[in-house]
Amino acid sequence: MSEFLFFVYARKSGHSPALHSSGRSGYAAAMMSQERILQAHGGGGELTRRLLAAHVLPRLGNEWLNPLTDGAILPRPGGRICFTTDAFVVQPLAFPGGDIGVLAVCGTVNDLAMMGARPLALSLAMVLEEGLPIATLDTVLDSVAAAARQAGVAIVAGDTKVIERGAAAQPGMTITTAGLGEVSDSVDLRAARVAPGDVVIISGRIAEHGLAVMSAREGLTFETELLSDVAPLNGLTADLLAAGVDVKFLRDPTRGGLAGLLADLADEAGWSVEIEEAKIPISPAALHTADLLGLDPLTVANEGKLLAVVPASDAETAIQALRRHPLGRHAALIGRCTDSAPPLVELLTRAGGRRLVQRPYGEELPRIC
Amino acid sequence: MSEFLFFVYARKSGHSPALHSSGRSGYAAAMMSQERILQAHGGGGELTRRLLAAHVLPRLGNEWLNPLTDGAILPRPGGRICFTTDAFVVQPLAFPGGDIGVLAVCGTVNDLAMMGARPLALSLAMVLEEGLPIATLDTVLDSVAAAARQAGVAIVAGDTKVIERGAAAQPGMTITTAGLGEVSDSVDLRAARVAPGDVVIISGRIAEHGLAVMSAREGLTFETELLSDVAPLNGLTADLLAAGVDVKFLRDPTRGGLAGLLADLADEAGWSVEIEEAKIPISPAALHTADLLGLDPLTVANEGKLLAVVPASDAETAIQALRRHPLGRHAALIGRCTDSAPPLVELLTRAGGRRLVQRPYGEELPRIC
Repeated sequence: MSEFLFFVYARKSGHSPALHSSGRSGYAAAMMSQERILQAHGGGGELTRRLLAAHVLPRLGNEWLNPLTDGAILPRPGGRICFTTDAFVVQPLAFPGGDIGVLAVCGTVNDLAMMGARPLALSLAMVLEEGLPIATLDTVLDSVAAAARQAGVAIVAGDTKVIERGAAAQPGMTITTAGLGEVSDSVDLRAARVAPGDVVIISGRIAEHGLAVMSAREGLTFETELLSDVAPLNGLTADLLAAGVDVKFLRDPTRGGLAGLLADLADEAGWSVEIEEAKIPISPAALHTADLLGLDPLTVANEGKLLAVVPASDAETAIQALRRHPLGRHAALIGRCTDSAPPLVELLTRAGGRRLVQRPYGEELPRIC
Repeated sequence: MSEFLFFVYARKSGHSPALHSSGRSGYAAAMMSQERILQAHGGGGELTRRLLAAHVLPRLGNEWLNPLTDGAILPRPGGRICFTTDAFVVQPLAFPGGDIGVLAVCGTVNDLAMMGARPLALSLAMVLEEGLPIATLDTVLDSVAAAARQAGVAIVAGDTKVIERGAAAQPGMTITTAGLGEVSDSVDLRAARVAPGDVVIISGRIAEHGLAVMSAREGLTFETELLSDVAPLNGLTADLLAAGVDVKFLRDPTRGGLAGLLADLADEAGWSVEIEEAKIPISPAALHTADLLGLDPLTVANEGKLLAVVPASDAETAIQALRRHPLGRHAALIGRCTDSAPPLVELLTRAGGRRLVQRPYGEELPRIC
């Protein structure tokens, strides 16, 4: 059913064809396909080679991946390197605005970007459930390829394993990506540098990824135009850093949402953070959907937004740099760091009240990424 | 049941205490533990932080992992770099001679080693099934820590996700590691350099990993002393390369076994390979177990063996270098490359016959790594 929902969204919405055009026909083909993943596709034998040759390499192939050796040899990087990994278990595999393939690329590219790194290479390991339609795999791989192209980074190493069919209604998959990036010497992102008076900037409208996935899962298809914001942020961070802004803290509000990230900021910087609810960019569709689902948008995951802390004197430069980029059009200053002790996060509400913002305790939204 | 089987093996056998001592008490504790993994442990909120603080960081923590940032910043490497990834789905999680944690570290360290790289850093992403005893997680993390220590490499980045309980009798987990290594300029591992007359060397007794896992799965507990050979091979490859041997092809016979790897060698080098069955090191226990399970040991996975192709003039130096290392004691010359066309792999049998060795078609042994 979730695959069907995807179409409704995809047809209604004007989402990026670069990332999602393959999804429309791909998931339709998957539904009708007879070809399914077998245990033997993950066995490392002839059938694994055929799967790679017919499905993976035509989509992701490059000089490093094609030889199917144990690893990719890359030239010596120009500076310090950044190394990161993320596992992706999102359900359903496709959701309004993206799928697990886009997410797996963007999640890791964004981890690199938030460390101030320029992505050099990604790895991609897939654990497929037996019975997964091969056309679904193809569609996910198309998304991986499109997202990697958008981020300007190659998949240079990979692995494919197959496990028995799980408990879910449809056979699924999980993807783990790792990323390697290069960090320029001028980047110094340490929360310890944050000081009272520094301002907090968000690059755009919040909560769209988590709400889009939850809408798909809850069948709220016709209620909303909401799409996941999943996107690679390395271009946006490069622009921000190139503008000469003294970025002291740079993170993306994924799991745990803006609330979780602000709690991290207060913890790590050792200063309080004061946020103005009225300044937090959020679309009417997101507000409406959060209301329908009974969720606090502050705790909902984003996959294409960054939060930066910069000196107040750099605020305008930072916001202008972000707004010039298509992914930063709605960038806004939402608050500032203060010396009120102990270090806490306070929200000045629209109604003029104050409330404490806390890190969500556990799983507001399971399997959101 | 599989957890119980692990004890029988562990107690009967003299396997490496460095890697496995934690396993004995750990898996016992896991069986009795009431603490289980919840969805919320993977949600990125407070419960995720507590899990990391109480279970992951005390075991794996270091200056790169402890800050729990989006990625690790490492100094500029001294040479070309190698980047690799592998997903591990072995069942049962613990098997005679190791567990999924040891395997996840060694598998990726060995991929780096087979590219001629010195491991610099690993990442570790875990996908846990809801209901997994936290004591089982602790035991796996102990194994990860011990294996990483043995290989001399740190886990610098990680991720933890939780999915619903699957179809298996016990809640399980999968682990994906990625690895980063440094490659010296003198290393030139290209199958195109292989020529007729070059010799094929294996570093020790074959088929032990796959047979140990299958024995555990089939309940052959009291029939055999067989342990998985899982071990980090970076020390062995460093010794081989330091001996000045002109290594042209270096690979570990994992999934697909020796047969799959020799087929790769013939394909990639474009030359035939002739192997003598009588020279292939294999223990009586492995022969016996393969016979009981109806398996061809040539197609069974190894996790602590390497295969090297070197000029005949370097054969003796190579074998001596390998034999001086504890993991290479049984190293042997098992065959040579020839110019018989088309490029095939031929086995000279003990009985004096010849048979073609082919890549296993699919999944001889599901979920072996």
